[in-house]
Amino acid sequence: MSPQKAWAVVAGVGPGTGASVARLFAKKYAVALLARSPENFEPLAKEINDAGGKAIGISTDAADSKSVKAAFEKLGKEFGGLPLAAAIYNVGGKFVRKPFLDLSEDDFEAGWEANGRGAFLFSREVLPLLLKNTDAEYPPTLIFTSATAAMKGSAQCASFATGKFAMRALAQSLAREFGPKGVHVNHAIIDGVIDIERTKHYHFDHPEAKIKPEAIADAYWYLHTQPRTCFTNEIDIRPAVEKW
Amino acid sequence: MSPQKAWAVVAGVGPGTGASVARLFAKKYAVALLARSPENFEPLAKEINDAGGKAIGISTDAADSKSVKAAFEKLGKEFGGLPLAAAIYNVGGKFVRKPFLDLSEDDFEAGWEANGRGAFLFSREVLPLLLKNTDAEYPPTLIFTSATAAMKGSAQCASFATGKFAMRALAQSLAREFGPKGVHVNHAIIDGVIDIERTKHYHFDHPEAKIKPEAIADAYWYLHTQPRTCFTNEIDIRPAVEKW
Amino acid sequence: MSPQKAWAVVAGVGPGTGASVARLFAKKYAVALLARSPENFEPLAKEINDAGGKAIGISTDAADSKSVKAAFEKLGKEFGGLPLAAAIYNVGGKFVRKPFLDLSEDDFEAGWEANGRGAFLFSREVLPLLLKNTDAEYPPTLIFTSATAAMKGSAQCASFATGKFAMRALAQSLAREFGPKGVHVNHAIIDGVIDIERTKHYHFDHPEAKIKPEAIADAYWYLHTQPRTCFTNEIDIRPAVEKW
Amino acid sequence: MSPQKAWAVVAGVGPGTGASVARLFAKKYAVALLARSPENFEPLAKEINDAGGKAIGISTDAADSKSVKAAFEKLGKEFGGLPLAAAIYNVGGKFVRKPFLDLSEDDFEAGWEANGRGAFLFSREVLPLLLKNTDAEYPPTLIFTSATAAMKGSAQCASFATGKFAMRALAQSLAREFGPKGVHVNHAIIDGVIDIERTKHYHFDHPEAKIKPEAIADAYWYLHTQPRTCFTNEIDIRPAVEKW
Repeated sequence: MSPQKAWAVVAGVGPGTGASVARLFAKKYAVALLARSPENFEPLAKEINDAGGKAIGISTDAADSKSVKAAFEKLGKEFGGLPLAAAIYNVGGKFVRKPFLDLSEDDFEAGWEANGRGAFLFSREVLPLLLKNTDAEYPPTLIFTSATAAMKGSAQCASFATGKFAMRALAQSLAREFGPKGVHVNHAIIDGVIDIERTKHYHFDHPEAKIKPEAIADAYWYLHTQPRTCFTNEIDIRPAVEKW
Repeated sequence: MSPQKAWAVVAGVGPGTGASVARLFAKKYAVALLARSPENFEPLAKEINDAGGKAIGISTDAADSKSVKAAFEKLGKEFGGLPLAAAIYNVGGKFVRKPFLDLSEDDFEAGWEANGRGAFLFSREVLPLLLKNTDAEYPPTLIFTSATAAMKGSAQCASFATGKFAMRALAQSLAREFGPKGVHVNHAIIDGVIDIERTKHYHFDHPEAKIKPEAIADAYWYLHTQPRTCFTNEIDIRPAVEKW
Repeated sequence: MSPQKAWAVVAGVGPGTGASVARLFAKKYAVALLARSPENFEPLAKEINDAGGKAIGISTDAADSKSVKAAFEKLGKEFGGLPLAAAIYNVGGKFVRKPFLDLSEDDFEAGWEANGRGAFLFSREVLPLLLKNTDAEYPPTLIFTSATAAMKGSAQCASFATGKFAMRALAQSLAREFGPKGVHVNHAIIDGVIDIERTKHYHFDHPEAKIKPEAIADAYWYLHTQPRTCFTNEIDIRPAVEKW
Repeated sequence: MSPQKAWAVVAGVGPGTGASVARLFAKKYAVALLARSPENFEPLAKEINDAGGKAIGISTDAADSKSVKAAFEKLGKEFGGLPLAAAIYNVGGKFVRKPFLDLSEDDFEAGWEANGRGAFLFSREVLPLLLKNTDAEYPPTLIFTSATAAMKGSAQCASFATGKFAMRALAQSLAREFGPKGVHVNHAIIDGVIDIERTKHYHFDHPEAKIKPEAIADAYWYLHTQPRTCFTNEIDIRPAVEKW
């Protein structure tokens, strides 16, 4: 039997932000780890469970309504007796950077699928659960991991930018509708390269030019603990040396 | 034989902005009128042709790639010998305003289909044509009709706002990529109710509380005539009495 | 006796935007030219008067309340019988770019003096006059010439950016208060180098990398002619090849 | 002798945010309390000193360069041996809300004096000190308490909005210049009424409609503890029930 009295769900668990957030939230909550591929959540689930936490991973295609529905049905059975404390939508999707006229329709839709539709499908599953938990120690929290592309549509980034702009619109709309009902919704603009294995070869002059995923996790935890009189609905996060 | 030496295309011709823009641009250019339903373009095409202009209407589903492709193939045959001077994307799509948890997936996708995917499909057809016409009297122009929802995600407007935010991202990305190549891309934030038959019953205290579509057409024409040293990439338009 | 039936005032008449705006507005209106130094307005006043227009220049320190008050008292005597059609605040002030810790208090205040205080002093003189002319052919218009620094505070630009941010705040506040009363207020973000004698040596790869001041004047004239149902409160203007 | 190994300075110590921030930072640092009137800092200094902390209050006119200089000279003598860990600029200034044409020049300048000039004078005193302390446990931090008026110039709020826009410009400029040098600069948009004695009679339907100053202090502390790979340069804070 698990000692955790609530659970959190992280969609988009990979080697960076998602994993760090899950690790940190697992210190207090049971955690559900969603990712398309089991290799993205299995080692992490094992690590958390071995450390005395509670984690379940489910293969999920975030942009597919049936897959998302099925994942939450399964989670309902696993965690049904516990309240949902926090939901983190961290699905990155495919990043396509190419001349506009070289974009296929699929290339273009990729940004929307991960950041628009996927964020919608996730939100409509978690919000009814979060709404039931507004008496918790910390206000129930829904955080979207976003990017600078949510603020600026750069050349050759039409797919990613349309998706991230859409994510920002959704986050604002949900914050305005569900904030007064006690759910804390945040749009987190991560402005920089995450410091993970995959980005090791990205060379920067400055040793601290990449964002530590553990620091993002700390930021999300801080946001989660904000009381109802002091919600942050948009936060930006970047390395000190980043140009912006 | 038509005396017009270039053509313009307006997608989303209805009784308001689209029709006024088409009428005004038809004073100089042959115009292609795209709308889902023939009743939206037939009377206007007749009016323009009767007045000595040149107009062709084509039934088009702006969010469907095959339909858009077919429309531009037909236009290529009709206007193939002429350069494309201006392209106006004015498709509004379904405006859904309801509590988030009442949105169906189709409700939510509606905003994207009209304002994201449709804008993409239109852009990839017109941009290659506009790029061929950068020596014209006026820089070739691509204008997106947008809304205040492109700037603010209001409660219960997640579908429309995600679509309009995405449209703004696309417009910015295209302006940055194609401006240096000589194409003028503009995102026009129309902030207010358009004064048309359908909005006659919207009562406002002030007699000039609604935007005249003819004035929007004048704005678009002005934008079209801006020289390459002076492009406006975003414009807002609202009645003097509008709260904002 | 002058045939002009109304007047316009341009504060900050130099060799660029101010002069071009004055020349264009002088085709319809008598124009008052304000600048600190007579050498900035005398040749222009002569040129306009020689061409059959009507122009008066007054030495004015835009950031000094007494000087501004005196200028408008003089203008009241000159043009008192005519309505004020348009007021353009185009004072640039000193552009200071240096490391923050090297800024003197005077350096820092320079941005505010030209763009904050000066804009205030000008606005409180022209608004009572513009309010008397809301039945004119074109809505009476107040335009502030601003810059990209109104949107982004760059490193080493604290003086200029604080001034331009303040100007934007003022323009928004005035647009919201005086728009419903019939006065059109606009904040014009000029994003680029103006093509004048002084910038001839600024070398760009592209021949159209600088903004023609005549094109800015056309933009201001278009804004002035917008009807009350279609006000633009913020416009951006940049060369097609500008990075933004 | 004080056990504190570093100090923090809070300018604008009143009954709300400033006092709460000082109380919280006093748990780790010696604190300097700046306010125009001793009645604003004396009880708080006593409270902190009685509780085993270390606090010094100095009467300071934040908009007067001599007064600010004198205050920091005194602080240099008091705390000269200690590094400066954090500096909070929380000066509100006079809030003037009146029709634009009723504003005196002094009314209008009030917004700038507190939020523009005062922020400049404070910044140029603290930045050289913060730069010496970039090896500290937490990156040295400069936070500006701002408001929604930094984002939107509302009607009849020209004085306050110009000041807060200017503050935002300054904060951005400093963040971009001093971030790469290891100083964390943040612009905190406090969007709502602070819950203090003076606002007790502000009636809201919702019991949590006002922001607890203790929660703002927690936010500032969190910002202070962010590592160099994860700086937040702008944060918004509002009650869950706030309209925005």
